Amino acid sequence: MPHVYETDGAAIYRQSFATIRAEADLLRFSANEEPVAVRMIHAAGMVELAEHIRFSAGFATLARVALSDGAPILCDARMVSEGVTRARLSAANPIICTLGDPQVPDMARTIGNTRSAAALELWRPHLAGAVVAIGNAPTALFHLLDMLEDPHCPRPAVIIGCPVGFVGAAESKAALWAALPVPCCIVEGRLGGSAITVAALNALASRTE
Amino acid sequence: MPHVYETDGAAIYRQSFATIRAEADLLRFSANEEPVAVRMIHAAGMVELAEHIRFSAGFATLARVALSDGAPILCDARMVSEGVTRARLSAANPIICTLGDPQVPDMARTIGNTRSAAALELWRPHLAGAVVAIGNAPTALFHLLDMLEDPHCPRPAVIIGCPVGFVGAAESKAALWAALPVPCCIVEGRLGGSAITVAALNALASRTE
Repeated sequence: MPHVYETDGAAIYRQSFATIRAEADLLRFSANEEPVAVRMIHAAGMVELAEHIRFSAGFATLARVALSDGAPILCDARMVSEGVTRARLSAANPIICTLGDPQVPDMARTIGNTRSAAALELWRPHLAGAVVAIGNAPTALFHLLDMLEDPHCPRPAVIIGCPVGFVGAAESKAALWAALPVPCCIVEGRLGGSAITVAALNALASRTE
Repeated sequence: MPHVYETDGAAIYRQSFATIRAEADLLRFSANEEPVAVRMIHAAGMVELAEHIRFSAGFATLARVALSDGAPILCDARMVSEGVTRARLSAANPIICTLGDPQVPDMARTIGNTRSAAALELWRPHLAGAVVAIGNAPTALFHLLDMLEDPHCPRPAVIIGCPVGFVGAAESKAALWAALPVPCCIVEGRLGGSAITVAALNALASRTE
């Protein structure tokens, strides 16, 4: 006998977001931030994520403006760049992930860092005014912070800094929050990842739920 | 001043897995299952994931055999298909995601289901002996279970059933576990997602940590 389940995509989103809003503690988020937090929680399948999400002042507004102005989206991993819903981007923003570039393995050896970190060196021509989305590698976020300590390095508009894991993730996000080179969004601690990062991007790209 | 952090990829993996093995309760997993659970926890950034992971009898062994024999990997979302580390696949397995096929929107309207579910109809020529990886859509997992109720539908070798979220995720995984049409791995409840699904695949594809 066929299974009985909700098969209407719009209804699934509606019910999911209603459940999140009923269960999660979202009071500390502004009207601009709240839909972003809701979608991040949705991607994680976990209302407790709410307590770990931090938006710096102005982040959500600036990210929305940058995206609607066509800012490039710079991603540390293909799971991030492939997850962005193109139909939600009103300005056909370029979505760039340099991790697979054939120069990267040699660059990683040269700078003595991971491929994820080395790949960011190829972001430089696109970095001014960009929306940065780091959803995988703590080393990428640490390397970006080091790049931005150079005043000649172009500044992105905002940084979504949500690497995940057990070595460097919590530390790199704490370092981003402490330095705050530009407005940012983080998930404190070990939690994070490509799905949560993509969810933040998709929420910032369009008000449609 | 540059940040001080671990920049050696192999050392990062080693330290991460050591932390997981020190903190997570992994005793109920077999020697074949344990590295899979460890990598899933790694992707989630959350040792508590361990208590939600279920492997049915024979799953880990059969999945490893299927992958080393070159079984196709069928994915419900591009975040899953893009996440699989090609270098870990010794048999250059085809990795297939049909969600973007131009026939899918019409098929979804015809069957009255989501695009994620309709896309699985295009899996039929590849389904026999395949490794199925559902890391996003509960409707895809429900629809696969309905397809497999037809005895003429080809059988995959194993199913990794880890959709995430608030509507249908827990229910579809419980239905998979109850029906067990082939050996499977699930994350019970709302947790799951593409990163956890990819981690399971990458662990099953190679013993290298």
